[in-house]
Amino acid sequence: MKTTDFNFQVVNRIFAQIMSIKITFPDGAVKEFNKGITALEIAGQLSNSLPKKVLAAEINGEVQDATRPIETDVTLKLLTWTDEGGKSTFWHSSAHLFAEAIEALYSGVKFGIGPPIDNGFYYDIDTGGTPITLADLPKIEKKMAELAAQKSEYKRQDISKADAINYFEKKGDEYKLELLEGLEDGQITFYTQGNFTDLCRGPHIPNTGHIKAIKLMKVAGAYWRGDEKRKQLTRVYGVTFPNQQELDDYLHLLEEAEKRDHRKLGQQLEIYTFDDEVGPGLPLWLPNGGFLIEKIEELAKKTEEEAGYSRVRTPHIAKESLYLRSGHLPYYSESMFPPMELDNVKYYLKAMNCPHHHKIFGAIPKSYKDLPIRLAEYGTCYRYEDSGSLFGLMRVRSLQMNDAHIYCTKEQFEAEFRAVNAMYLKYFKIFGIEKYKMRLSKHEPSKLGQKYINEPELWIETEKMVRDVLISSGIPFDEVPDEAAFYGPKIDIQIYSVIGREFTLATNQVDFAQGKRFNLKYTNKDNQEEYPIIIHRAPLSTHERFIGFLLEHYAGNFPLWLSPKQIAILPISDKFLPYAEKIAGDLKAKGFRVKVDERAEKIGKKIRDAEMMKIPYMTVIGEKEVENQQISVRKHGKGDIGTFTIEDFTVLLQEELNN
Amino acid sequence: MKTTDFNFQVVNRIFAQIMSIKITFPDGAVKEFNKGITALEIAGQLSNSLPKKVLAAEINGEVQDATRPIETDVTLKLLTWTDEGGKSTFWHSSAHLFAEAIEALYSGVKFGIGPPIDNGFYYDIDTGGTPITLADLPKIEKKMAELAAQKSEYKRQDISKADAINYFEKKGDEYKLELLEGLEDGQITFYTQGNFTDLCRGPHIPNTGHIKAIKLMKVAGAYWRGDEKRKQLTRVYGVTFPNQQELDDYLHLLEEAEKRDHRKLGQQLEIYTFDDEVGPGLPLWLPNGGFLIEKIEELAKKTEEEAGYSRVRTPHIAKESLYLRSGHLPYYSESMFPPMELDNVKYYLKAMNCPHHHKIFGAIPKSYKDLPIRLAEYGTCYRYEDSGSLFGLMRVRSLQMNDAHIYCTKEQFEAEFRAVNAMYLKYFKIFGIEKYKMRLSKHEPSKLGQKYINEPELWIETEKMVRDVLISSGIPFDEVPDEAAFYGPKIDIQIYSVIGREFTLATNQVDFAQGKRFNLKYTNKDNQEEYPIIIHRAPLSTHERFIGFLLEHYAGNFPLWLSPKQIAILPISDKFLPYAEKIAGDLKAKGFRVKVDERAEKIGKKIRDAEMMKIPYMTVIGEKEVENQQISVRKHGKGDIGTFTIEDFTVLLQEELNN
Repeated sequence: MKTTDFNFQVVNRIFAQIMSIKITFPDGAVKEFNKGITALEIAGQLSNSLPKKVLAAEINGEVQDATRPIETDVTLKLLTWTDEGGKSTFWHSSAHLFAEAIEALYSGVKFGIGPPIDNGFYYDIDTGGTPITLADLPKIEKKMAELAAQKSEYKRQDISKADAINYFEKKGDEYKLELLEGLEDGQITFYTQGNFTDLCRGPHIPNTGHIKAIKLMKVAGAYWRGDEKRKQLTRVYGVTFPNQQELDDYLHLLEEAEKRDHRKLGQQLEIYTFDDEVGPGLPLWLPNGGFLIEKIEELAKKTEEEAGYSRVRTPHIAKESLYLRSGHLPYYSESMFPPMELDNVKYYLKAMNCPHHHKIFGAIPKSYKDLPIRLAEYGTCYRYEDSGSLFGLMRVRSLQMNDAHIYCTKEQFEAEFRAVNAMYLKYFKIFGIEKYKMRLSKHEPSKLGQKYINEPELWIETEKMVRDVLISSGIPFDEVPDEAAFYGPKIDIQIYSVIGREFTLATNQVDFAQGKRFNLKYTNKDNQEEYPIIIHRAPLSTHERFIGFLLEHYAGNFPLWLSPKQIAILPISDKFLPYAEKIAGDLKAKGFRVKVDERAEKIGKKIRDAEMMKIPYMTVIGEKEVENQQISVRKHGKGDIGTFTIEDFTVLLQEELNN
Repeated sequence: MKTTDFNFQVVNRIFAQIMSIKITFPDGAVKEFNKGITALEIAGQLSNSLPKKVLAAEINGEVQDATRPIETDVTLKLLTWTDEGGKSTFWHSSAHLFAEAIEALYSGVKFGIGPPIDNGFYYDIDTGGTPITLADLPKIEKKMAELAAQKSEYKRQDISKADAINYFEKKGDEYKLELLEGLEDGQITFYTQGNFTDLCRGPHIPNTGHIKAIKLMKVAGAYWRGDEKRKQLTRVYGVTFPNQQELDDYLHLLEEAEKRDHRKLGQQLEIYTFDDEVGPGLPLWLPNGGFLIEKIEELAKKTEEEAGYSRVRTPHIAKESLYLRSGHLPYYSESMFPPMELDNVKYYLKAMNCPHHHKIFGAIPKSYKDLPIRLAEYGTCYRYEDSGSLFGLMRVRSLQMNDAHIYCTKEQFEAEFRAVNAMYLKYFKIFGIEKYKMRLSKHEPSKLGQKYINEPELWIETEKMVRDVLISSGIPFDEVPDEAAFYGPKIDIQIYSVIGREFTLATNQVDFAQGKRFNLKYTNKDNQEEYPIIIHRAPLSTHERFIGFLLEHYAGNFPLWLSPKQIAILPISDKFLPYAEKIAGDLKAKGFRVKVDERAEKIGKKIRDAEMMKIPYMTVIGEKEVENQQISVRKHGKGDIGTFTIEDFTVLLQEELNN
């Protein structure tokens, strides 16, 4: 071995060490790459097909351009269309593409802001008097597609504040100039694709070629900076996809979702209403909605009784001291209603039922033989939501929650958690929910004692138990590190309606901390005091959210067992009212929910109204029916299904109920 | 006819007119009497036996001595023991009798105050260091009885402030002197019976002879004028009756009531609890209480469904504007919780459900064919009660009310009101309430348009309908003029527990006014708009009051159908636990509520504990039971009732449930 050779190897190794970086991937794998490599290039080294899919990169938890060189050791997640960060970058870049098209089509346009939103993007523009209407959108879409096909790269450029101001002064865009005022020199970047340059923090996708399907949705007015004293700009909403099929599916989903809009159906089917004098976000449940609530509670109570739950009742208010103990005050106070001051004590509406339930657990001394204790209550909670974010039944201020708290020993935890999951699956089956997913939010060991309660073994143990139960129950789930609650792992349950829209149903919570805060103790086998583990669970969510979901899921066509009215009896004229009443009486006596349409309306109108109310069955009563002592039956959405005797008809109904 | 004769007649007539007064009696009859006659003398003119019963007189609505001369036309009610005013005067005079006895037994005693209270009287005395204990009470009772037998008259005397001060200065009673400081000269009276004179406004009974039975109940300390910085006096509580039987009954009732105290039973049976951090008057319902609530709601919901009610749900809060419309603000604001201020709007906890229900009625246009509409909700209301007046479940701040509002036409009112009454009677039967009474509070025609809404025909019509229904339903009732609510007649329902204690269960309200205030309209047959009549009703009261009542009524021994636990299974040792669990499983599968006592306690202790929890049945499981595959059954409060097979035992239970 020559000395020079040796030296060369050493130098090479040192050089390689200096010039290489360690990349940690989401699965924990660590690989070395050359310093300065981009996420996109890494994707290329990992797989041939991957670069075509990579839209952005999550580097040390922050979403960035996939084309930026990486200079240090980092954790890296390559973001594609299926990642939230990928989608949002895609839509942000689509907003720039829109702007590029606008600039190509209209001269002298000035630009406000153009962010990605939940489903697509918008851009606020000032066309200087040229109106943009729905009719103009196809032309713009066409131009966007044309520009996208050019596969222009999104290029990032650091720029000094002076140069940036200079650029937009020349362009004459006072909006961007105003935005620049608020930015700090040295922090400013431009992004350019094709002929369009924007003041933008990024990140963006590698090039416009990813954008394969484009739909501009609507045009609206929007005040500059949301200030109604300032100029009204034109806001164009759009959505884009990496292929046409996804766009088609999305538009179909929108159409379906509109037909199934729970707010529209809620009014049409007389489920709930709001009233100005009662207040926003506080639904009043009309008799049909009240019926649904009772029926769902009946199911929940029966299910919970069989599963060994005890029902309790607690007031809707408590003293400040309760929430100071639970920690809701001050940490959750922004979501709580403001206090009422009574006898010099502040009282709060409860935002959660747990503190009250803990007090019930603590009211009577417990031994391990008493555990598990499962306290259930359909408790109404009150949460403050900004009035702007209230939305039908989906975002409200009063929530009737299918709440329960399970107090158990460590040894009982797995069986209890398994039983909670089984209850979810039982409900999913009953309501025909075929697609669902759970999301297990875990702790981060380095943050024990700070972000997370310092019980290292309990964290690992319970997370493992939760994981094992999810796997053995065949429930699809994602694991997310560092997103647990302070006091234990969290399991979010997402369900999908028939048309594929996602809803967050509920959150389960494993809780090692509240037991101690509330001094909830039980005596174990060795006659020592221990704190129970607490499981917070609400499989049927809140009535508000769940009925909102069911309205969309069933498109208002509730299954027979759940329909507020099951049969509409429609006499052709008043002459047949007595027979109609007799039929109604017979069916009611058999336990069916019946409504006789006594109005002096034409039969066609009566049928249309019953169809609109989505009553599962209608029976038309006329001359022939009275003569033959039979009934003609119509099924909602299907029309005439024939003539029946009352007995045959009830058999038909009973069979449907049994399924 | 001689001129002198003629003149004599005229003079006589004029003189008679001047010297006579008109007395109006409660039944409306008016009779003339000589000026200066006393109520007691009037009683003598009406009936021979009456004067012996008259204790005081209500003159123009004010209770006075029955022995005071009446000088002008007045309304008069003679008060006897059955009248509240009679009782209270009787007890006030008994306090003076007590003082007379004390003065006779102890020298130099000074007297504070001695008022009548709900059940008897007390007197605060300063014995100058001589302690008075329970052991002294019989001696004092004996002296009181001796003095009572002297039939000393209670003599009223107007006295000047100077003379009064002089009297008590001589007597050396600084308490009375201090009381005199606060009195105005010319307004001061003394009452004297036998050797005792007191500073007193009265009124008093005619003489001590009415007091035939005496019981001094307890001795306590009480600060002079309730001020803990001042001297502690001795407070002696007592109760007296016009005959020994009533005293015996009362003492028996007290004994029973103490055993049945809902607060004691509520704790023993683990029904409810209070918690300092939640707040006073806000019960937390433990699992056994939660069970009772669910069971009662089940009954109410089934009953209301059969009676054609629709269930609704409404939030527990509303904007100030709702209560301004209903008139709760400002008229009822003292009973409401203070507001929460949110987005610059005041929100209030609801004290009643009616405004919310009215909004539901008004949400959808109505025709006469839709009426009657009956909206039901077990709505929780919040009412502010002074913390001093809170009492167990009987006076609370959160009330879960068996509420409903019936909206009907005038023509439908009678049938609806009849049905409401029938529902009361049905419940009374279910809960074994054998004694009940209603109280119909009516309007006063001269106050129409002021105290009462100006609908003269409606008042007369509905009061007549209410009266007719009460009569034809065989419900005992009193009529009280001038005590209706502003917007219609009021019907209070009083029930009596098994031991004869009276409870106000609920108030029904006929309401002509809120329909208009809330602009609730329906289209009548002639296509014109009308306001419905509204019936407010709550036959099962609130859970709080009703369960409080039931605890006393059943002495905690709930009937089998209502018992939170029906059977306690008591294995003699752990060895028999498997068989105990098997029996429990069998009984649970048959729908019974079973609890296995798994504790490592002696069987005697297990039986005692099950007895204390008032579980209707206990089955003891030991060697013999396992061998014979049978169970030994004990009945609560009765002991062993023999050995059964599971089948025979369930037949026994089922029979009891069916009754």
